[in-house]
Amino acid sequence: MKRYLLTPGPTPVPPEVLAVLSEPMIGHRTAEYRAVLGEVLERLQQVFRTNDDVVLMTASGTAAMESAVANTCSPGDRVVVVSAGNFGERWVSLTTAYGLEADVIRYPWGETPSADELAARLRELGGAQAVFLTHSETSTGVVADVESLAAAAQDAGALSVVDAISSLGAVPLETEEWGIDVVATGSQKALMTPPGLAMVSVSKAAADAASASPRFYLDWERYGKAQAKPDAPYTPAVSLVIALNVALGLILDTGLEETFDRHVRLGRACRAGAKAMGLELFSPDEDRSSVVTAIRMPDGIDGQEIVATVRSQMGVTLAGGQGELRGKIVRIGHIGYVDIFDVVTGLAALELALAEAGADIERGAGPGRALETFEHTRV
Amino acid sequence: MKRYLLTPGPTPVPPEVLAVLSEPMIGHRTAEYRAVLGEVLERLQQVFRTNDDVVLMTASGTAAMESAVANTCSPGDRVVVVSAGNFGERWVSLTTAYGLEADVIRYPWGETPSADELAARLRELGGAQAVFLTHSETSTGVVADVESLAAAAQDAGALSVVDAISSLGAVPLETEEWGIDVVATGSQKALMTPPGLAMVSVSKAAADAASASPRFYLDWERYGKAQAKPDAPYTPAVSLVIALNVALGLILDTGLEETFDRHVRLGRACRAGAKAMGLELFSPDEDRSSVVTAIRMPDGIDGQEIVATVRSQMGVTLAGGQGELRGKIVRIGHIGYVDIFDVVTGLAALELALAEAGADIERGAGPGRALETFEHTRV
Repeated sequence: MKRYLLTPGPTPVPPEVLAVLSEPMIGHRTAEYRAVLGEVLERLQQVFRTNDDVVLMTASGTAAMESAVANTCSPGDRVVVVSAGNFGERWVSLTTAYGLEADVIRYPWGETPSADELAARLRELGGAQAVFLTHSETSTGVVADVESLAAAAQDAGALSVVDAISSLGAVPLETEEWGIDVVATGSQKALMTPPGLAMVSVSKAAADAASASPRFYLDWERYGKAQAKPDAPYTPAVSLVIALNVALGLILDTGLEETFDRHVRLGRACRAGAKAMGLELFSPDEDRSSVVTAIRMPDGIDGQEIVATVRSQMGVTLAGGQGELRGKIVRIGHIGYVDIFDVVTGLAALELALAEAGADIERGAGPGRALETFEHTRV
Repeated sequence: MKRYLLTPGPTPVPPEVLAVLSEPMIGHRTAEYRAVLGEVLERLQQVFRTNDDVVLMTASGTAAMESAVANTCSPGDRVVVVSAGNFGERWVSLTTAYGLEADVIRYPWGETPSADELAARLRELGGAQAVFLTHSETSTGVVADVESLAAAAQDAGALSVVDAISSLGAVPLETEEWGIDVVATGSQKALMTPPGLAMVSVSKAAADAASASPRFYLDWERYGKAQAKPDAPYTPAVSLVIALNVALGLILDTGLEETFDRHVRLGRACRAGAKAMGLELFSPDEDRSSVVTAIRMPDGIDGQEIVATVRSQMGVTLAGGQGELRGKIVRIGHIGYVDIFDVVTGLAALELALAEAGADIERGAGPGRALETFEHTRV
């Protein structure tokens, strides 16, 4: 059975990137590795759109998020968390684990956070040490307007910290221009590399925040000192870093603008296809939210069963709902190394599974409408 | 130029393991991945020689060490660190970062720690929450007698925590039989997998130690709950876990006893070869210390330059000295996927470089003596 990976992470890895993973291992204290690392760090700055240092860690994206909490805040610090889904709640868990006084602006899952509400809350509180934001809320498909949210944080003198794990490299994020202090991401989404690497950009203000939280592996200063050489403070995931370098090269060769545009066009096609099938969108029908398309399941249909069917019967991996959305939605990820034919395949698999489950859907309409909607022949 | 990797980590990765790294990415919430993870966790218990849970993290080995500090001790706790090299000092840094009251038994680099001294210190102190030990001190080549050291900790009612990053799977370590509470290791040494995965075995006593240190990514309980399914709490380094499964299969197919024996025979051959060349060993001339052979450089020879020469001129990667041993020693790692021909190559490269640097060494004797010393034709 042929396999298709359409989850919001890990995402498909291009063959050029996979190929270097099977090259013989090299030492990390060699000129050869240092050259790769130096190039990766420079390319990451281009993708993050910043001149700030980007710390590269061997870890999952959650560790990048945790490093922001541990390096910028001390126990007892007042912070604001904006949460509208599973990953917003991760900020809540992280800030709680570090003993911060987290004021949570909590939206129903699927809603889009408001910068005005954040500004008002910060005024009420008389400021905060940091504001923790989610760019692409992978659990709902909503991409927030972090430009406005970060501006609200900045106006209140708070550091702005953005989880951009499923968005960086897929949708525009102007780290420096928007004045975002910390942006966290991972290798396994738009960066088209297997999971295992986490990155975080650190503004001067964020680096200067004197934190009393205990930390070692996630301590930014240790990375900063080593990366200046360039080197890594601890044995890095050598093969993944080499792979990331290839993937970043592919992204920058294509161009970020063109890459963002592809995600917008894929999102439009996916949403149009789902609607043509007679399904209701859960994620917003807007261009900004073009990373993951979350689709409501018709009454009586269990999304988890649909996901299981398309995976075991058709070789297509989609994602179900998380937390309170479990069973209620199916998510099609179109992040990174994904083209219109993948989106059509995802919609086609969904159609077949829904039809088999007895759902009242329009047959044959989804993939066709997706293709019709897709704007360029350049895929 | 052909390449040879003879550092004490990362170590060479077998082609069967490299090959799976370039297979298409799969989702981590799939039956396919869960089956691999379940097998890895079971095989890790076999290699750790324990029925305790083994926590599998996406991180460098240092994070596994840090997790032991963060999960078993609270700020202000009295602990003992036994340090005789660079990695013993890492325990000092880690325990200090977490605000523990660390009593350090510090030996000159290259010495072998004494269990009697540890027992005496623990008596003086009236016990400790935990004792932090290094099994194979990669910076010096010394493998400590952790069986006796852990027994001394146990007698004093302290948790025993062992850094076995460069030893686990290379030299005997009976986690359960020796009553060791926590053993930390990484994927990139004897486990013959690229760097990026860290593992730690956790005894019931260690799991029950209520720690007040803040932690999230390194929190054992989150891994324990997920791994019971089996699942990972955060997106794992999927390709590395799949690769680790292949490597663990190779190790267990060969058998741990045979693998330990190979390391002993390679260590004997390497030491005999170095001595035949007229060089002095820095690491002990004993079978237990058969993971890394540290060799003193003759007067007037800079070990860093020798390492640079063999790497750039001959394609052979050896390791220099760390910290205070920088320039004074050269280290040949013979861990994991290494055979007698690799050791001969390492010695031969060392001979060529030393001769070129004008050192007074016996030509042609090292590789020959290594071969002569090697006991079996079974490589």
